[in-house]
Amino acid sequence: MSETAVPVAIGPTTPVPTMLAKAVAEGGAVLSELAGARALIWNGGPGEFPEQLPDSVEWVQLPAAGVEDWFNAGIIARHPQVRFTSAAGAFSASVAEHALMMLLAGVRYLPEHLRAGSWRQQDFFPHVGTLRGKTVTIVGAGGIGRALIPMLTPLGAHVVAVNRSGRPVTGPGIPDDVETVPADQLGKVWQRTDHVVVAAPATPDTRHLIDADVLARLKPSSWVINVARGSLIHTDALVSALASGAIGGAGLDVTDPEPLPDGHPLWVLPNAIVTPHDSNPPQLRFAAFADHVAANVVRFVAGRELLAPIDPQRGY
Amino acid sequence: MSETAVPVAIGPTTPVPTMLAKAVAEGGAVLSELAGARALIWNGGPGEFPEQLPDSVEWVQLPAAGVEDWFNAGIIARHPQVRFTSAAGAFSASVAEHALMMLLAGVRYLPEHLRAGSWRQQDFFPHVGTLRGKTVTIVGAGGIGRALIPMLTPLGAHVVAVNRSGRPVTGPGIPDDVETVPADQLGKVWQRTDHVVVAAPATPDTRHLIDADVLARLKPSSWVINVARGSLIHTDALVSALASGAIGGAGLDVTDPEPLPDGHPLWVLPNAIVTPHDSNPPQLRFAAFADHVAANVVRFVAGRELLAPIDPQRGY
Repeated sequence: MSETAVPVAIGPTTPVPTMLAKAVAEGGAVLSELAGARALIWNGGPGEFPEQLPDSVEWVQLPAAGVEDWFNAGIIARHPQVRFTSAAGAFSASVAEHALMMLLAGVRYLPEHLRAGSWRQQDFFPHVGTLRGKTVTIVGAGGIGRALIPMLTPLGAHVVAVNRSGRPVTGPGIPDDVETVPADQLGKVWQRTDHVVVAAPATPDTRHLIDADVLARLKPSSWVINVARGSLIHTDALVSALASGAIGGAGLDVTDPEPLPDGHPLWVLPNAIVTPHDSNPPQLRFAAFADHVAANVVRFVAGRELLAPIDPQRGY
Repeated sequence: MSETAVPVAIGPTTPVPTMLAKAVAEGGAVLSELAGARALIWNGGPGEFPEQLPDSVEWVQLPAAGVEDWFNAGIIARHPQVRFTSAAGAFSASVAEHALMMLLAGVRYLPEHLRAGSWRQQDFFPHVGTLRGKTVTIVGAGGIGRALIPMLTPLGAHVVAVNRSGRPVTGPGIPDDVETVPADQLGKVWQRTDHVVVAAPATPDTRHLIDADVLARLKPSSWVINVARGSLIHTDALVSALASGAIGGAGLDVTDPEPLPDGHPLWVLPNAIVTPHDSNPPQLRFAAFADHVAANVVRFVAGRELLAPIDPQRGY
């Protein structure tokens, strides 16, 4: 260990997962015990988090994108001298890929194809759609929304990104001509929306954002994709819209209630795709977290701004 | 009509389809009778094509990507003074989108999700994959292959494009770092291939290109997608590989035999996705043709090179 090497601890797992040890090394730091460490990479839940951190610790990397549980457990408040970062953004690509998968499968009528046991080409022809030339409204331009945009535009889709401020959405791979609309103008967007991807945080403002009224303004060919939280969609209104054919279908990685109980209509509606909140499964999550850790250790060692800083005042 | 406007006729349909009339107008030309027209947009088959064209006609746009039938009917030879263009490339995007859809649905385990009637998150977790960091080998770098590359790279996939010459594949949206491999080196590619998309023409050379030997060299997680012709895959070998789990699955828009007969094992294998050659259904085909017409009318009016020129010597 050189005199200038930055000591970074990994907790709580013993032995330390190889992927994280590699990430710390790749980031240019050295693995250390918690005592004397300048940073802690936390790979567990809030329940196991140390009561006290050594004074040496300046930065803690948490393993989750949403950190309500850490706030609720008082961990952020208990360590005012420490900078916390979340894993926000790290898992976005996998979730965005999942959203794209459900949207494409829906638009191209895959669920019905998978139920077919014979060729029936003429029956299927009229139901196969495309994203080319279609307007996809992404509600929420955080990590997932911003990761999804560069996946949609090469397919010829027109993207309308909805964020709070209406400030133009930017980011790697996001074309300049992507349209950004402030959330308070959302009501004007539905009429020209072909498909909706819900990717906004769950807040009192976004609860039941997609309700009977919104669903009624979509098209019989519209697919509604939810990779955010179940509460953003009014489930009963969605079930009605799916059953009546008011919309084309729904792809849901999150539901309300969640887990979706056995016997729920969403399990049997032919135009509903339900995946059990597995758009970012542990094996993909862990690899993505390790990438995020490596990137943040590089920044910490260099004294640069960290990715996904947690603001103790805002609560995320 | 201004004095300089270029007169373009549309045949044979009367009344002229709105979408094509719009395409001609968007292209900057004016709709005209065949007599006096400088160009003819042909929306019918070769059987209805005029015996004689007026001397004014300089360019004919045909509605098909493959124009063997027009050659066989003697239409190209009969009009040596006319430039003919096909619709080659116009329909590639829809087929590429379909290939992407099947690949993503396979990798993310959608078929099994659709059969589930309860949440079972822990059961599903290990089966959900990603294209990020995976190598997708596209056999055939014609219109479909070249359209697919810019859809895959934003997902973080590494693309290996296989063409006859091995000359680097280029085109709109294709990154410089896409690897191109000549067909005679294909045998060396399988070992590092995660997924295969078959998009090459059916020729004696490509018959059973994907056979038992190739399938044995892929991975238990590999998906094989075919949007070209059924004959490129040895069906019985594929069925065995799917049944044994030697590969992850197959997404087939084309089959051998085609149509796939009722009762064929591919209809019931849980890791086979079959769509009845509907990746480019008539309604999408017509919209794509109209886009192609608009782009070519722009070029004709400006005196620029036309898209998809037919070479009377080469026969396509």
